[in-house]
Amino acid sequence: MFVKLPAKFLNNKIMSNCVILTIGDELLIGQVIDTNSAWIGSELSKIGIPVLRRVAVSDRADEIVKALDDSLQVADIILITGGLGPTKDDITKHTLSQYFNSRLVTNADVLNDVTSFFKKVNRPMIESNYKQAEVPEHCIPIRNKLGTAPGMLFEKNQKVIVSMPGVPFEMKEMMTSYVLPELKKRFSREHIEHITIMTAGVGESFLAEKIRHWEQALPHHIKLAYLPNLSQVRLRLSGRGSDLQVLKKEMQQAVEHLIPIIDQNIFSLLDEGIEVAVGKLLQTKHMTVATAESCTGGYMAHKITSVPGSSDWYRGSIVAYQNDLKEQLLQVNHETLLQHGAVSEETVKQMANQVRLLLISDYGIAISGIAGPEGGSDEKPLGTVWVAIADHDTVYTKKFLFTRSRLQNIEMSALNALFMLYRVIKGNFTQS
Amino acid sequence: MFVKLPAKFLNNKIMSNCVILTIGDELLIGQVIDTNSAWIGSELSKIGIPVLRRVAVSDRADEIVKALDDSLQVADIILITGGLGPTKDDITKHTLSQYFNSRLVTNADVLNDVTSFFKKVNRPMIESNYKQAEVPEHCIPIRNKLGTAPGMLFEKNQKVIVSMPGVPFEMKEMMTSYVLPELKKRFSREHIEHITIMTAGVGESFLAEKIRHWEQALPHHIKLAYLPNLSQVRLRLSGRGSDLQVLKKEMQQAVEHLIPIIDQNIFSLLDEGIEVAVGKLLQTKHMTVATAESCTGGYMAHKITSVPGSSDWYRGSIVAYQNDLKEQLLQVNHETLLQHGAVSEETVKQMANQVRLLLISDYGIAISGIAGPEGGSDEKPLGTVWVAIADHDTVYTKKFLFTRSRLQNIEMSALNALFMLYRVIKGNFTQS
Repeated sequence: MFVKLPAKFLNNKIMSNCVILTIGDELLIGQVIDTNSAWIGSELSKIGIPVLRRVAVSDRADEIVKALDDSLQVADIILITGGLGPTKDDITKHTLSQYFNSRLVTNADVLNDVTSFFKKVNRPMIESNYKQAEVPEHCIPIRNKLGTAPGMLFEKNQKVIVSMPGVPFEMKEMMTSYVLPELKKRFSREHIEHITIMTAGVGESFLAEKIRHWEQALPHHIKLAYLPNLSQVRLRLSGRGSDLQVLKKEMQQAVEHLIPIIDQNIFSLLDEGIEVAVGKLLQTKHMTVATAESCTGGYMAHKITSVPGSSDWYRGSIVAYQNDLKEQLLQVNHETLLQHGAVSEETVKQMANQVRLLLISDYGIAISGIAGPEGGSDEKPLGTVWVAIADHDTVYTKKFLFTRSRLQNIEMSALNALFMLYRVIKGNFTQS
Repeated sequence: MFVKLPAKFLNNKIMSNCVILTIGDELLIGQVIDTNSAWIGSELSKIGIPVLRRVAVSDRADEIVKALDDSLQVADIILITGGLGPTKDDITKHTLSQYFNSRLVTNADVLNDVTSFFKKVNRPMIESNYKQAEVPEHCIPIRNKLGTAPGMLFEKNQKVIVSMPGVPFEMKEMMTSYVLPELKKRFSREHIEHITIMTAGVGESFLAEKIRHWEQALPHHIKLAYLPNLSQVRLRLSGRGSDLQVLKKEMQQAVEHLIPIIDQNIFSLLDEGIEVAVGKLLQTKHMTVATAESCTGGYMAHKITSVPGSSDWYRGSIVAYQNDLKEQLLQVNHETLLQHGAVSEETVKQMANQVRLLLISDYGIAISGIAGPEGGSDEKPLGTVWVAIADHDTVYTKKFLFTRSRLQNIEMSALNALFMLYRVIKGNFTQS
């Protein structure tokens, strides 16, 4: 129907790759967010099996069959989740049994598992539960230690098709204790290594320009991906190779060449947020931080306290959402507020200093700005945000202008303030 | 290669259906959870366009082409996200341009948008940014109001193929302001009506049991979906019909019959969070609230201040993450902390009273608990959370026991505290 791409656009097929197939109407109408596929993809990636494609189809036999046909043309492994429950909309088992021309028979081990499960939770079994012990006779049943629906492994022409329940913790248990070890045994794999470099304070295209020469010099088997999210860009290096030690060394060298180019923008070489990186830094130095927030309305405190163990380095926050509270709780000078307004360098300076003293911490962060959707003026347009960081003898300040929605402006304010603190602690923040 | 299913397994094709195609290696290796597809599926479902299949493929031209070929065989609409950025790993635009045999030309309107964007954020443009203004000559470019990569709409044999950026807020804006209206215009659909009933304080299965008879009495063309999310269950009624007025009336009647059954649990008949419902209630009564937080670490303040205009009814928060600050900032009695601990009815009572007085508000909410992953004891297991609501003459308290992860326990604490405030204001909270 449409023109085909010339051959130079087509890459070579990589061996032993996988298609992840998820089944269920709830995935298509957006009622459930598909976290299973992401988890499976990440686990397969760790053992060097590339995922070629992820497909979600509805609880319809024709769609499931079509997806199986298509997947078997391109992949050696198909991992299926969903549609194994006891209710009438769950048709995966029957469809697979037809597809592999294999009748359903009661499996004694599975029946034993199901019976034990109901005994354990002290609930009676109904007919549909007994049916869960039926599996296609030509499959290898996979035990479900946390639920009632067994998994199934089918083999055909050196290919492997695995069906698992859609309930995340049942699926994860099955993958970890049976499927992943089995795949490791059956398929020869290339090694895959990923390194994530977290950057902030520079936009995607600017970053790309900065590191263009470095990127062009990467060997063919090491690829770079840009994953931008508000004020941060994650750089992901992915390499493939047959010799793991050689590959690791090559990747390490690539990173070492990258670091000096964007030194000021890197805050971690692990896949972690700025709040985690700041926390580690403070913890190493046995230092603490407290926050004074206006426009971010508690979001910075939340971002920080979402890190387990943050009580080791975080003191607390004063969210002075109303101006009179900036005077009353944070002792901002009345004259300052009158003369410069709540969104000003002078105000955030006082807030940062005061919160540091009041909450007895080594650093104080203060944020005041106009998050939107209302409240801007010509002089202080919507999205204007002032940040101050106080330590024992200096207050550093910076003005930002964000141009997004309320929630995004709030998030960008908090992330940028944390990155600013990171640079202040590292001693490489320059007051402009 | 495998046996085919007999014809009785194949359902009929539904007209005007859609395939969602997401592009990007990060989706396959599980580095990013695909929330875009869920959102798109949910929006399409609202306007009566069924999603037949969701496919995620890597940043490889051959895989993108294969997915397009397959999708065009079964669907009338293909919505693509991802791979439109300015960097080298983004190949969607070039692949589509080849696929539709259409060369890339600079579009004046898009160039104008891109130039304005960089002017607005006050950053210089580099070559790769100019390239973003190039689009295939046979497509309709779609404006990107929040970023630099334009969307593209291709038409072929009455079918529509749309390509959008993968950045969620850019994609959502494009869908809302252009793509969804365009699809509504181009494809004939039945009328679909949705009503959402927001409930809290009751679990999904318990709620289902309570409203079983009502649900069974619903006419065949009106369906109920349960959308549980931590402490809240959204009930979504979806009806289809050819006569819109009749359908609306039937749906309205169904809701009127439901209300008396679960009166105590409903907080809104709009699809809005408890923080919005509480805000409306306070605004109507010209009253204000302030918060004192321990384990929620600023999350409740953030949830409240995420509502635009919340400055009309919200004063601020004291996040006393450390115990000494509960004494110092919130004047909790030293003896109380020694005798009962920070996670106790006595402590939250004092916190709620004090924050109400200190921040000069009509209501004070206080939360103290153990969010995890560490810190539980036999007497106060992990997940124990005390909430107090103070008004001018009473303090209401409630103890919760949550059993989830740190972030979920934090979210459930905040949501339940806000629902508790809702009921206190309504005068139907009963101190147990």
